Amino acid sequence: MLEEGDWILIRFGEKKYLRELRPKDSLNVKKEVLKFSEILGKPEGIKVGSFEIFKPTLEEIILLGFERKTQIIYPKDAFYIAFKLGIDKNSKVLEFGTGSGALCAVLSRVAGEVHTYEMVEEFHRLAKKNLKRFGLGENVKFHLGDFLEAEVEEESFDTAFVDVRDPIPYLEKLHRSLKKGAPVGFLLPTANQVVELLKSMEDRFGGVEVLEIMVRHYKTVPERFRPEDTMVGHTAYLVFARKLTA
Amino acid sequence: MLEEGDWILIRFGEKKYLRELRPKDSLNVKKEVLKFSEILGKPEGIKVGSFEIFKPTLEEIILLGFERKTQIIYPKDAFYIAFKLGIDKNSKVLEFGTGSGALCAVLSRVAGEVHTYEMVEEFHRLAKKNLKRFGLGENVKFHLGDFLEAEVEEESFDTAFVDVRDPIPYLEKLHRSLKKGAPVGFLLPTANQVVELLKSMEDRFGGVEVLEIMVRHYKTVPERFRPEDTMVGHTAYLVFARKLTA
Amino acid sequence: MLEEGDWILIRFGEKKYLRELRPKDSLNVKKEVLKFSEILGKPEGIKVGSFEIFKPTLEEIILLGFERKTQIIYPKDAFYIAFKLGIDKNSKVLEFGTGSGALCAVLSRVAGEVHTYEMVEEFHRLAKKNLKRFGLGENVKFHLGDFLEAEVEEESFDTAFVDVRDPIPYLEKLHRSLKKGAPVGFLLPTANQVVELLKSMEDRFGGVEVLEIMVRHYKTVPERFRPEDTMVGHTAYLVFARKLTA
Amino acid sequence: MLEEGDWILIRFGEKKYLRELRPKDSLNVKKEVLKFSEILGKPEGIKVGSFEIFKPTLEEIILLGFERKTQIIYPKDAFYIAFKLGIDKNSKVLEFGTGSGALCAVLSRVAGEVHTYEMVEEFHRLAKKNLKRFGLGENVKFHLGDFLEAEVEEESFDTAFVDVRDPIPYLEKLHRSLKKGAPVGFLLPTANQVVELLKSMEDRFGGVEVLEIMVRHYKTVPERFRPEDTMVGHTAYLVFARKLTA
Repeated sequence: MLEEGDWILIRFGEKKYLRELRPKDSLNVKKEVLKFSEILGKPEGIKVGSFEIFKPTLEEIILLGFERKTQIIYPKDAFYIAFKLGIDKNSKVLEFGTGSGALCAVLSRVAGEVHTYEMVEEFHRLAKKNLKRFGLGENVKFHLGDFLEAEVEEESFDTAFVDVRDPIPYLEKLHRSLKKGAPVGFLLPTANQVVELLKSMEDRFGGVEVLEIMVRHYKTVPERFRPEDTMVGHTAYLVFARKLTA
Repeated sequence: MLEEGDWILIRFGEKKYLRELRPKDSLNVKKEVLKFSEILGKPEGIKVGSFEIFKPTLEEIILLGFERKTQIIYPKDAFYIAFKLGIDKNSKVLEFGTGSGALCAVLSRVAGEVHTYEMVEEFHRLAKKNLKRFGLGENVKFHLGDFLEAEVEEESFDTAFVDVRDPIPYLEKLHRSLKKGAPVGFLLPTANQVVELLKSMEDRFGGVEVLEIMVRHYKTVPERFRPEDTMVGHTAYLVFARKLTA
Repeated sequence: MLEEGDWILIRFGEKKYLRELRPKDSLNVKKEVLKFSEILGKPEGIKVGSFEIFKPTLEEIILLGFERKTQIIYPKDAFYIAFKLGIDKNSKVLEFGTGSGALCAVLSRVAGEVHTYEMVEEFHRLAKKNLKRFGLGENVKFHLGDFLEAEVEEESFDTAFVDVRDPIPYLEKLHRSLKKGAPVGFLLPTANQVVELLKSMEDRFGGVEVLEIMVRHYKTVPERFRPEDTMVGHTAYLVFARKLTA
Repeated sequence: MLEEGDWILIRFGEKKYLRELRPKDSLNVKKEVLKFSEILGKPEGIKVGSFEIFKPTLEEIILLGFERKTQIIYPKDAFYIAFKLGIDKNSKVLEFGTGSGALCAVLSRVAGEVHTYEMVEEFHRLAKKNLKRFGLGENVKFHLGDFLEAEVEEESFDTAFVDVRDPIPYLEKLHRSLKKGAPVGFLLPTANQVVELLKSMEDRFGGVEVLEIMVRHYKTVPERFRPEDTMVGHTAYLVFARKLTA
């Protein structure tokens, strides 16, 4: 049953709204009004006028609920990363930088433990707030500070994901912190960055793959089935590799 | 340390091989030979000549290790599905048909419990064998039989994924089996099937989305960074929705 | 030399403006002003402040200069169509409907002669106006009326392109009007329309191909080379075939 | 009517064959035989068994008929280039290198005159042979030699297209050879090359655009409409710009 304080995802046609269920609030779309008092105590999945009421999924929480002060890692990329790194419930995962916490929220669903590092205090606090607000990330340890200066046990992480402007200065420490053969991933917005990273990885990391994930959405009118007019053209290049040991 | 009987992923340039580590075996690529006896007792992540040796990730197990008697759900799609359905470790997930077990292996990583149904005994056995062989799917219950005829408690599943030729006859029972507001997904290879499904869902399911996941791989030579010459053009359309309650 | 009344294409960073060169006019972008009097009598290719001045190409004329009262056929599609149909300077080309004239302008560049039909007088006039305004389409005959009712000599066209909501009622007459073996093309926004057309073509037309053209644009900053954030996701499906003769 | 010596395009389902019509020849596909003597004197567009017989379009000539000793510029790219450069029947077009002549064949359809330069005698001869063999390129002047050393009148070309490994040494001469404001294009397989070119163009060329053309083909069975399983992932990046004048 939907209770006061629950997060609710409201669909109106193709539009989506994420709201906290406060009985006095309402949502007004195209002159149609949804009074939140009407859905209190009702089950999710009900339709009130043109409004459909659900509990939000992780994707909806990240896209609509997370406050952003950085570019986020989009769910399409995060979903792929979480599995590509071979993470399971026994995995101890390293992530830096935390950013707004979007990838962190996804990794923590599959992993045993996530250690995430962020240099900028504002982002560090934001990520913690974003996850806490939606009851996520119990198994996440948020570290404030540069991973380069962190005290980390050698060969202690099962895998790592790196999202910093220039990952190259981190490669040596990253390599030391990972278990032998561990999968590692990097997110880079530009081709130039990928080229530089590829040049720097060669000895320490093998099995390199570079890819992009593209999602093509379709209109859902059955009589006029066709792709959406516009699509996301690019979020980032993803680079995956495995730690090599001399 | 790599032991006899371990599954190993061998990279040779861009080629990948999944093998069981049997000391008497060897791998011969372009006149270079890797004797498995040489890597026994060594850590993963070592490089022997041009060969790089790792433990396989879930993606590599599915793509290279799973025996296939059906079209499989590719990792790029499975990864997205597992999160799009909002699954977490408390989720009780329904899947049919099981097929060769590729999606099942992915769902079971995130879910609390997966119940999968398959009508064809040959596929049912194959999926069980595929997962067991790689130590996967402890939380999976494999059911032999048509989901239509299965005894299932009403409103007992948190989410479901459907991969059968014609999902329409299953919609009513599917709807009854899901908790209120539950996310549900469908995989369909053709546009015609999507159109038919969209026509049939309208009353029982809301919040419909249709999409495709495309992965663009790049060559990893830093001096000549460019996409691969060929790419997978299509695997399937994915349809996602939420259970509506009258 | 740029003269009064010339069409000019003005670039300001990635923005493009198409204007008629009237000496009293000016263009104001981000607080920078280009007085047209300053470029009168100058050669194209000059740079005035951040403004670059060129004569427009056909693509720029269509995208920025053509008035639209219909959905247009985008240059990316039109360019492909013009060649895919095997048109050369000896070709007599049939087109219907004319719409706003975008495809017509492209076809007429390669063809000997283009005959274009449009039922809606408003569009017919607009297309004529659009082409005339930019000095295009000398070899185009604009016909007002439904192609179904037009008097057309049998087997007189070398090729044809069809852009109407429902092409099926036109197939028989289209077939009769084309020379034996002639290439023909269709533009259709939805998958449903493609399916219906494919079902109806089978006996009269062979060598069928269906495709989409996608253009991926990149940011042009050399230090940060990457695709644009958003791209056109879909304009239309293109269907090509050849006339079969019993 | 199909005559001895004509080039014919034979379709068998989705397969295409380009053959010279020699009465004694035949084509054997999946145990079905087409004797060429049977189609002599028949019109194109006939169907003999499962074979459909047409005259080839320019695209089919390039893809199936041109002998290749170099990577060719694919029709999808060539079609776009020909129009993007704003070419019409009054245009004097510069191209280097000629390669196997694929782009040259396309440009010459729209242009008044094409001047193409090739350093490698083998390719120069091949391109001439390819175009001549199919009756193409009457308005093409084939030059053997490096464009850098060619005697070319200043500001004499309306537009140019460049397909050489390293275009940068050619930029200065290219710039001098073009009319003021002229459009110019470059084909580059790798992102690294695009980055280097962008860095070198800045002063001499403006209005820069970088893009890729992707074609997505569909299966043509109306009951199972869906994209092809595989697609071309990449041919080349296209860079377009305009000559600037100080």
